[in-house]
Amino acid sequence: MTSARPQGALEGARALVTGGLGFIGSNLSIGLVEQGAHVTIVDEMIAGYGANPFNIESVRDRVSINYCDIRDANAMNQLVVGQDFVFHLAGQVDHILSMKDPYPDIDINVKGTAVVMEACRHHNPLARVIYTGTRGQYGKPASLPVSETAPTQPLGIYEITNLAAEKIIEAYHLVFGVRSVLLRLTNTYGPRAQMQHSRYGVVNWFVRLALDDATIPVYGDGLIQRDFLYVDDCVEAMLCCAASERAWGNVFNLGVGYPTNFIELAKAVVRAAGSGRWELAPFSPERKAQEPGDFYADITKIRELLGWEPRVRLDEGLARTVEFYRQNRQHYW
Amino acid sequence: MTSARPQGALEGARALVTGGLGFIGSNLSIGLVEQGAHVTIVDEMIAGYGANPFNIESVRDRVSINYCDIRDANAMNQLVVGQDFVFHLAGQVDHILSMKDPYPDIDINVKGTAVVMEACRHHNPLARVIYTGTRGQYGKPASLPVSETAPTQPLGIYEITNLAAEKIIEAYHLVFGVRSVLLRLTNTYGPRAQMQHSRYGVVNWFVRLALDDATIPVYGDGLIQRDFLYVDDCVEAMLCCAASERAWGNVFNLGVGYPTNFIELAKAVVRAAGSGRWELAPFSPERKAQEPGDFYADITKIRELLGWEPRVRLDEGLARTVEFYRQNRQHYW
Repeated sequence: MTSARPQGALEGARALVTGGLGFIGSNLSIGLVEQGAHVTIVDEMIAGYGANPFNIESVRDRVSINYCDIRDANAMNQLVVGQDFVFHLAGQVDHILSMKDPYPDIDINVKGTAVVMEACRHHNPLARVIYTGTRGQYGKPASLPVSETAPTQPLGIYEITNLAAEKIIEAYHLVFGVRSVLLRLTNTYGPRAQMQHSRYGVVNWFVRLALDDATIPVYGDGLIQRDFLYVDDCVEAMLCCAASERAWGNVFNLGVGYPTNFIELAKAVVRAAGSGRWELAPFSPERKAQEPGDFYADITKIRELLGWEPRVRLDEGLARTVEFYRQNRQHYW
Repeated sequence: MTSARPQGALEGARALVTGGLGFIGSNLSIGLVEQGAHVTIVDEMIAGYGANPFNIESVRDRVSINYCDIRDANAMNQLVVGQDFVFHLAGQVDHILSMKDPYPDIDINVKGTAVVMEACRHHNPLARVIYTGTRGQYGKPASLPVSETAPTQPLGIYEITNLAAEKIIEAYHLVFGVRSVLLRLTNTYGPRAQMQHSRYGVVNWFVRLALDDATIPVYGDGLIQRDFLYVDDCVEAMLCCAASERAWGNVFNLGVGYPTNFIELAKAVVRAAGSGRWELAPFSPERKAQEPGDFYADITKIRELLGWEPRVRLDEGLARTVEFYRQNRQHYW
């Protein structure tokens, strides 16, 4: 990977990654190890939440894993000690589940974040915290692309709890001096995402259907636009944030910054897989009410402040994703 | 009280008031009874949170009281049944406590609100919910007066959990059709606020000090501006919101809409009480970091949409407040 990140900036650094066995957390942990950082992964392996020990197979001997709940304050108080960075990625991330039962999101995403921040405040106030929220915090955008100053009108409990977590981390930065960077991620895809259910990343689900030679359902008219970011670019942005003092105290959008619609996505997935097909399908009424419409991110702020920008175009990202799952299918299907 | 509210609109209506033994909740409950509504108060009487059975002494035989925690889902599921209105006021409302221990706010204000909304969704989706948040949801205003479209950048856990609660109620409105009105209250004062500690409303605390013939500390240079709303005006706004279909789905600021600084306030309090004095005092460093600066609300939206506006000027409101506590001192000191 190339970037504006100073080479060697993370060499020897100590990093805690909550949710480190999950999709983005595991890719991040691998990236940190490659940069010479000492990584401790915190994960509770809640069934269905996306954690998979195979995700970190390639660096298994070079990371520590601490199995625990982020709401376990005693454990977190120990784990933050001595860390230079706390990448806080653990959470309930399923919008649909959050609308069936709001309590896990409130408890894990809001209270869990408070536990992490209280641990830093009282046991390691010099730790720098990098948090990954969601573009869902914006809700239905009033205009496109969406910059960080756009209103936040989240349309679901998952998205609301991400916003609350972000605000908590921001308050600890402003009031208690625990420095942090707040990222709002667009649709992220790539290797190491769970492939067992369709409730997380839509791109990976499309990849699974295509590799199964099945039909990809494209909802509505298929023209809804999204911003699809390859996970390596996402990881690189997080490493840039860790490596640069200019990042602290900021909210940054992460995305590719240009739109792709779902028909284009489905076509690209079928092309990358060499199998599968797609067809239009109707929204459920409930899903339609919660559909936030077109979204793509304005990524000017992180580009200008940190020099980060996405490198991996959709076709290339999909090719790498397909290749990963072809080789490791038995660990994900 | 005079207002644009249709006379008789609440006659015979059934209303649940969470936090109904507290400051605003009790004034609201009395207002509802005066309008002919059937009122059920939910209150847990958490020590120090401001509930006081004496608050509803004047209507004790005309309201039902249900002692329980709003987080008690089984209880709330019963209590919402048959209610036309759910006024949701229960919560942890102490900024300073929320910065010492974030968990009660997250649990009561966020999860508790989800319990109330889940109860409505599953057991009375036709209930209309009126929620009282805080001007603290805005944080440090970028410009004055502050309208409902201003960015929300809360600076404390209490304020963050109010914002999250508001967003949850809004999501249940948009996704599940449980209609609601979201109010953001400025500094509210008047009869029935607790007078035992200084951590809630500053105006009432000044009144207590003056009635005790003590010295009122005015922090900083005393020129910070706030918007002080008399509780009867606040109650009238809530009744207007209940009585008007135009209100549903809106966020409204409540305030007088013009600024008063703390020296002016202190002078007015001393004048109303005929005792006490004031002097400037320094901020603590932590308090200074969390001080959101000048605030007064733009109340154009509720004025234009519902015809509500505040009627009680500061001197008059303080005179009534002083009179109430002179007569009922033994129940509050």
